[in-house]
Amino acid sequence: MARRSMRNEIVTAALEQFHAHGYNAAGVKTITDAAGVPKGSFYNHFDSKETLAVEVLRVYGEGRLDELLGGADEPLVRLRAHFEAIRDQVVRLEFTRGCLLGNFGAEIADHSEVIRDSVAAGFRQWVAAISATLAQAQRGGAVRAGLDPEMTARFLLNAWEGTLLRARADRSAEAFDTFFAIAFGPLLADGA
Amino acid sequence: MARRSMRNEIVTAALEQFHAHGYNAAGVKTITDAAGVPKGSFYNHFDSKETLAVEVLRVYGEGRLDELLGGADEPLVRLRAHFEAIRDQVVRLEFTRGCLLGNFGAEIADHSEVIRDSVAAGFRQWVAAISATLAQAQRGGAVRAGLDPEMTARFLLNAWEGTLLRARADRSAEAFDTFFAIAFGPLLADGA
Repeated sequence: MARRSMRNEIVTAALEQFHAHGYNAAGVKTITDAAGVPKGSFYNHFDSKETLAVEVLRVYGEGRLDELLGGADEPLVRLRAHFEAIRDQVVRLEFTRGCLLGNFGAEIADHSEVIRDSVAAGFRQWVAAISATLAQAQRGGAVRAGLDPEMTARFLLNAWEGTLLRARADRSAEAFDTFFAIAFGPLLADGA
Repeated sequence: MARRSMRNEIVTAALEQFHAHGYNAAGVKTITDAAGVPKGSFYNHFDSKETLAVEVLRVYGEGRLDELLGGADEPLVRLRAHFEAIRDQVVRLEFTRGCLLGNFGAEIADHSEVIRDSVAAGFRQWVAAISATLAQAQRGGAVRAGLDPEMTARFLLNAWEGTLLRARADRSAEAFDTFFAIAFGPLLADGA
């Protein structure tokens, strides 16, 4: 039980550190300090920082999909609320974080095949959830009939990652306004 | 004349080095070596690496807009060819580069106000060129009448930057296929 909980502490602290400072800048010592556990205990739980990163990506990926896939709201309302919640977090943290999947993809996918695979798996899971939500919205008539849900989900997610990048570079919410105006206007909702 | 040409050599070499390795990884010595000029000559031409980066961004930004704004093709055909040319370069270089504006935005916009302003100016110039092209295409009936050209241009560019990020992270052209299928299909061209 104690071991299990120490492992969780490390994962939680690592998510925070990786998100705030990036993979390379967050060393094992920084992570174990933030978790309040001895550095020596790290290797009882993880082979390497890379193995930890894979676990962090898994936890991060699952965290954000529950509210998208469930709930009483209409599917398109849930989808919008999902992106709005991420936007609100980015604005609240003054544009310092962005998306962990996108950050890891940009920072280390070139250097670690294991992490590249985890990032890709995270995006696939996210695309599947958005695609299912779009298909549901389409059946209810809220999304244009001719759109392919999966292709559109992939496009939306790439557009979203680019939006996060711009919002962070500009330290401005303008890119978010653009995303919501076009994605939930002429792209998904009506024939313009 | 010689001074002028040495300056150009430095800018050309810096564009290459910044694009291939990033701003922080490309030191002044690496750049002057690549330019084939003495390191000491650097400060005859630039106050700092930051000043050089501003000049590099200006040159980079101008380089890609000529073929978009001119030429005999229909405006929507030119816009597509513009993105396809960037895609082809990324694929040819095996997904190692991406967009210098996006890269600089992600890597250093947080740390340098001067560079953040240059990146923002580069994007503004690019948005203006795409917006003008979309407005032209709209007048010819090739783009949906209800779309706001400027808002759509900003959205497209953010979607494009996200597409580049994903293509590089995955080392796959799939994100490009998605971009062209949605952007030049249901988003711009028809009411789905």
